[in-house]
Amino acid sequence: MPDYSLSKKAYKQQSAELNEALLEAQFELRKAGKGPVLLLISGNDLAGKAEVIHTFYAWLDSRFLNTRAFVLPQGIEKRMPRMWRYWRSLPPAGELGFYLGSWYHQPLMSFSRGNLSANAFKQQMEDILRFEQLLTDEGVVVLKVWLHISPNGEAVETSAGQQRYQDTVAMREWGDFSRADYEKVRAGAQKMIELTSTEQAPWIRIPSHDPRYRDIEIAKLLLKAMRQHLESATESAASHHKSFLPGSVDRLNSVDYSAQLEKDDYKAQLEDYQNQLRELVRHPRFARRSLLLVFEGTDAAGKGGAIRRITQCLDPRYLRVHGTRAPTEEERTQPYLTRFWKRIPAPGTVVVFDRSYYGRVLVERVEGFCGAADWQRAYGEINDFEQQLQQANTLVIKFWLAITEEEQLARFQAREASPLKRHKLTEEDWRNRQQWSTYQKAINDMLEFTDTKQAPWHVIAAEDKRHARVQTLKIVCDTLRKALK
Amino acid sequence: MPDYSLSKKAYKQQSAELNEALLEAQFELRKAGKGPVLLLISGNDLAGKAEVIHTFYAWLDSRFLNTRAFVLPQGIEKRMPRMWRYWRSLPPAGELGFYLGSWYHQPLMSFSRGNLSANAFKQQMEDILRFEQLLTDEGVVVLKVWLHISPNGEAVETSAGQQRYQDTVAMREWGDFSRADYEKVRAGAQKMIELTSTEQAPWIRIPSHDPRYRDIEIAKLLLKAMRQHLESATESAASHHKSFLPGSVDRLNSVDYSAQLEKDDYKAQLEDYQNQLRELVRHPRFARRSLLLVFEGTDAAGKGGAIRRITQCLDPRYLRVHGTRAPTEEERTQPYLTRFWKRIPAPGTVVVFDRSYYGRVLVERVEGFCGAADWQRAYGEINDFEQQLQQANTLVIKFWLAITEEEQLARFQAREASPLKRHKLTEEDWRNRQQWSTYQKAINDMLEFTDTKQAPWHVIAAEDKRHARVQTLKIVCDTLRKALK
Repeated sequence: MPDYSLSKKAYKQQSAELNEALLEAQFELRKAGKGPVLLLISGNDLAGKAEVIHTFYAWLDSRFLNTRAFVLPQGIEKRMPRMWRYWRSLPPAGELGFYLGSWYHQPLMSFSRGNLSANAFKQQMEDILRFEQLLTDEGVVVLKVWLHISPNGEAVETSAGQQRYQDTVAMREWGDFSRADYEKVRAGAQKMIELTSTEQAPWIRIPSHDPRYRDIEIAKLLLKAMRQHLESATESAASHHKSFLPGSVDRLNSVDYSAQLEKDDYKAQLEDYQNQLRELVRHPRFARRSLLLVFEGTDAAGKGGAIRRITQCLDPRYLRVHGTRAPTEEERTQPYLTRFWKRIPAPGTVVVFDRSYYGRVLVERVEGFCGAADWQRAYGEINDFEQQLQQANTLVIKFWLAITEEEQLARFQAREASPLKRHKLTEEDWRNRQQWSTYQKAINDMLEFTDTKQAPWHVIAAEDKRHARVQTLKIVCDTLRKALK
Repeated sequence: MPDYSLSKKAYKQQSAELNEALLEAQFELRKAGKGPVLLLISGNDLAGKAEVIHTFYAWLDSRFLNTRAFVLPQGIEKRMPRMWRYWRSLPPAGELGFYLGSWYHQPLMSFSRGNLSANAFKQQMEDILRFEQLLTDEGVVVLKVWLHISPNGEAVETSAGQQRYQDTVAMREWGDFSRADYEKVRAGAQKMIELTSTEQAPWIRIPSHDPRYRDIEIAKLLLKAMRQHLESATESAASHHKSFLPGSVDRLNSVDYSAQLEKDDYKAQLEDYQNQLRELVRHPRFARRSLLLVFEGTDAAGKGGAIRRITQCLDPRYLRVHGTRAPTEEERTQPYLTRFWKRIPAPGTVVVFDRSYYGRVLVERVEGFCGAADWQRAYGEINDFEQQLQQANTLVIKFWLAITEEEQLARFQAREASPLKRHKLTEEDWRNRQQWSTYQKAINDMLEFTDTKQAPWHVIAAEDKRHARVQTLKIVCDTLRKALK
């Protein structure tokens, strides 16, 4: 039987070699600008979770290391989707992230303390699996180690354990438990490991009675993962994903583009709905809800005008409008949903996306900014994202403003002629127009695959601006009213 | 007497012209990537603060507009330096920011409600003046308008006012006041305007009884400011600042570089101080304090090693180590302190800067990355920053690790030869070495001008690494112990 320990001499020799190789890999990772490598460190409180991190800080270039540590959710975190704070925590490309009390900590503690049913626990583990799958698909490496101490060493009360604990850092994630409670956490952890060990991100159990053995084992793992990461192709493998079948319904074709509204009707209805909206957001129940409005549409379809008719009714203090543009250099190296996760609404507030994460399955698909496998899996990822929002009391309302090819041409020409609007028209707009039919296909697929119960698409005929403005306002009012009942 | 109103016809004509010119200026501002233009909108609740913003959202390209609105501080904001949330709110270069309830809102409300003494109010106004001065020096334009309604229109209770209020957005910054309370806010605002009208950022009173007149006036102001901004040289004018006299003390020369520690003494003292530090950060009183450790020093002086000896004693969950590197493209367009403001410690936590904002008066000065006026005013700005931290219960401890030119050469050569350390040595390090004496001057000036009572410099002889590590640990312990008493 192996005793999972290492002599001082063996440690010295192995650590010197590993240290050099790890530094080299860290340097290469940074140079290659590859997605970050995350090391999740879980395990018994006495197994030395913090010590492991100190070892790597001693071995590696600490300027490119990021330690993230999560305690139970505080303040606003309690009222946001569970994964929100983890999305915000991802380290930049080319760097390493050490996670203590990662996304596993909260469900494990709640479950072990009896505050979470077995079913809910299982559900949360599945949410985590999808999150980790998304990260690995986006080029992030997820390593999960469980520091294990054998039955004797594990006892909280052993004086040796206490002594060692005193000597290191006062980090008790598991809290001050009785022996019985402690057993419950252990059982919960066992279940957690069973539920979340996947091929791409398995849990690796590290015998941790001997710190030297423990650190060398983790270093080997990390090194291997970094080297594999460096060798892997940057393009995600299409074979991981099911073969894609384009949508079967041409929703854009079934739009009634002739819908319109006379000026007087428009004025009356606009005023009416705007008054309704003002009332609705003042409803006491809205303080615990939030609203995310997603505006997508053909270039020149009138998104800005429709958005303004809505935001005019809202208190600017509780509103943010984000014009989504091409991602910055830094944003391009992150999973594409990251910048949107950072901008989701807090309770009682409204966020408007003028264009959105749907760019993944529109411009990025059409222009080839991401691989086919990437945009094909995005439908599921986006549905999942919106579901998490909905579960956290956020209403998600999505609009596609549709105009015909002829109307777009007329508006482009009018923009060109107008000193007020010519800045809004770019070369890119003309280029996009060339690809009209390719875009139609992408839009139809999007409407088919992401039209969900929790976040339905509203396709709005926008050939007549007045009609589109009143329609979007009306839908916002109706949805809000229903939700606040 | 002017009646401060505008006919519908006059409005139509003027707004068309202004709209076009504003769009042009907005486009140019973005193209030039100049610092953002902030428009602070204050005034009576019935004067239409939110309406003004809606007007500009209708006129301008809303994708490059940012509205910021501050209510009284919430949650963590209450325990951070007052200006923290405003620093985090600054819009990107080339864009416009509309501020409602700006940094003036909280002091004005507190003062008017009798929760802030006249002296404290005055002090806060002075803090704001320094903040605005820093922004304008860094290329940000600050416009401050006060929307004024003449005595009749100003009454909260007029039915016309109430009606108008109902029709627009429910935005009551001033709260539901009695007439007497209302007068108090008005008096406070008067004082605020007197105290904070400066040449570069004066308060401009806008008669606002007539919305048409109000919006046209503000549009004119904004256009003028944008045009001036576009014409101004990018370099800040040196003439704004007092002529700079280099420091008179050569503190680096008075370091005793021979200080050292034997191995056995080192081991014993290291253990002793590390145990002390572990105890100190567990002190209940530390939960309301925080610690910022700034490490600066000659290249290869051993900052990383000294930092590790400290962080080993700290709970990784409440610790962040930031390796400061050259700013990203985005960061370069922001006031240089912005990225550090975003990383200051929350109560109960420790933040370590491995290099810091002092880069402004070191590498940026020596390499000419900023103008002479810029680094010369930075001493005062940095002292001010650190004072704000100290006032918010953050302990700031600063270390300069000093080695001799010969020792540096020896360490560079050792790094070159070592596979473990060669990544740490770059061409830039050798180039910096060429400028040894220029750096010495910059360092001495820094030590002289930023060695303050609230955040003193500790110059540590680091020729012997053991000595330096124990010294820094000891100082951290001593400072903490004194502060927690």
